[in-house]
Amino acid sequence: MEDEISSFFESSPPLKNMKEITEKLNQFIELNSSSQGGRRIACVTSGGTTVPLEQRCVRYIDNFSSGNRGAASTENFVKAGYAVIFLYRRGTCQPYCRSLPDDPFLECFEFPDNTNIQVHKSHLEAVEMAVMDQQAAVAEGRLLKLPFSTIYEYLQMLRLIATALKDVGPCSMFYLAAAVSDFYVPWESMTEHKIESGSGPLDIRLAQVPKMLSILRSNWAPKAFCISFKLETDSKILIEKATKALRKYKVHAVVANELSTRKEEVVVVSSSGNVVVRRECDKPESIVEDNLIRLIVDRHSTYIKESHN
Amino acid sequence: MEDEISSFFESSPPLKNMKEITEKLNQFIELNSSSQGGRRIACVTSGGTTVPLEQRCVRYIDNFSSGNRGAASTENFVKAGYAVIFLYRRGTCQPYCRSLPDDPFLECFEFPDNTNIQVHKSHLEAVEMAVMDQQAAVAEGRLLKLPFSTIYEYLQMLRLIATALKDVGPCSMFYLAAAVSDFYVPWESMTEHKIESGSGPLDIRLAQVPKMLSILRSNWAPKAFCISFKLETDSKILIEKATKALRKYKVHAVVANELSTRKEEVVVVSSSGNVVVRRECDKPESIVEDNLIRLIVDRHSTYIKESHN
Repeated sequence: MEDEISSFFESSPPLKNMKEITEKLNQFIELNSSSQGGRRIACVTSGGTTVPLEQRCVRYIDNFSSGNRGAASTENFVKAGYAVIFLYRRGTCQPYCRSLPDDPFLECFEFPDNTNIQVHKSHLEAVEMAVMDQQAAVAEGRLLKLPFSTIYEYLQMLRLIATALKDVGPCSMFYLAAAVSDFYVPWESMTEHKIESGSGPLDIRLAQVPKMLSILRSNWAPKAFCISFKLETDSKILIEKATKALRKYKVHAVVANELSTRKEEVVVVSSSGNVVVRRECDKPESIVEDNLIRLIVDRHSTYIKESHN
Repeated sequence: MEDEISSFFESSPPLKNMKEITEKLNQFIELNSSSQGGRRIACVTSGGTTVPLEQRCVRYIDNFSSGNRGAASTENFVKAGYAVIFLYRRGTCQPYCRSLPDDPFLECFEFPDNTNIQVHKSHLEAVEMAVMDQQAAVAEGRLLKLPFSTIYEYLQMLRLIATALKDVGPCSMFYLAAAVSDFYVPWESMTEHKIESGSGPLDIRLAQVPKMLSILRSNWAPKAFCISFKLETDSKILIEKATKALRKYKVHAVVANELSTRKEEVVVVSSSGNVVVRRECDKPESIVEDNLIRLIVDRHSTYIKESHN
């Protein structure tokens, strides 16, 4: 397993801006570790990773993920006093932007007198909240956003973050909501140029991406509180799969989602039993992440207390 | 070939909002056909199509395409007096938004006195232009934006548009800049649930997507002026492939792009010879689409004149 992991990293195209990311990370962690006696720091991963099929990539395999879960969870962690490293897929949903229209940039504005641009009244409150909350979180140094696209970028960045958070110990958390590819084409066996069409069907053999969760738990950040996610489309196998993942990767909880009901409820699977978390149906504004993050933060508090004993 | 095409459409999951799209299309075409003695109408396709690997889709194959070419070309067609049907991949680049920052929504605003939200001075001009130009084009009824995600949606929508444009004849144009999948998993042979990981490598067999260009030319809209695109990463085979496509699909021109230089130059391949089109290097604001659309519009004018003889 460790061999597979090191060969994955050795064959990955290296991160282009590694130095810049490392500097930002260290600064962020230092600031938050020394603020108010040490803030808790969560690394929230969000959105899907891509798997290139060609080195000069035209085609790639992607995982469907809007990034809504990660963005909404980030807002809730910040509200609960955490500093958040938001490791997100480029172009997916951003924190504080959930209540904006689909194409916010072009739909939010009007020109009442044909000269001065203004935010349309019907969107004004949503826009003000989005911009103000986001800018406040960034200004307080409590939100660091780091974008990725490929599985190679994602796993290298996750390793960087985990290593940088090592000294934060039990006060750090990994909340791994990103939809990470299970299969990939190893870089060295990948064709350089665009695969040619026109000659019948195409057969692709995909290798399994080595599971990094074990090594994150055992080596990279063994003292961090760690939450992973399991998404299935078949509700019959969901809980069984989540339970297996809990045991195999020794994470502190697995959040089990079913694709069609994931905005209504999730099940938090942990060694202390399974808890169904729902959004509050009588409040239209309520989202499942409000209750989910409350539960996770409670569990994290217990974990920190127990770690100090 | 026709068999393959009809079986592709028969097995595709049907468009959800077909009635609404058809109504919008007919209204748009009627308005523009009767305005100023009949405006020219271009259908610009933009962005990549996705190919689901599961019916309840978690994973899919995608084509890398920012949508920049389609968005910039749309602006230029509108400027040249055309009405444009912009058939674009959800989430890709929109017309008039090229000069905005990456994450425009959160970066463009400021609160100078902590109460009133304002567009940041450094972005004000770009934002005003983007919003004003887009709103003017929509208000004049000269820009209709229709989003797609999958190859199934794209090809069904393209057929709807082509059929609706049939009566516009030589004044209609197809400018097919979208990056359309060459391979797909036929719907009926697709697994319903998420493919399970954990049991070694995954083999996928992909069928070829039937080429719709031939039937667009021969049946759907035989009198329309038709421009297709060819993208390669290997410059050695690019012109040969573009020339083959010109002959095979009987389009009026093929725009040949090489992935790494596509923002600097393209080659327009047609029966009258190959023309290299470059952006004007001494003007930093200049883009290759300025000269490209000028050339295409000229060719279209000649085509319309010849059709009337």
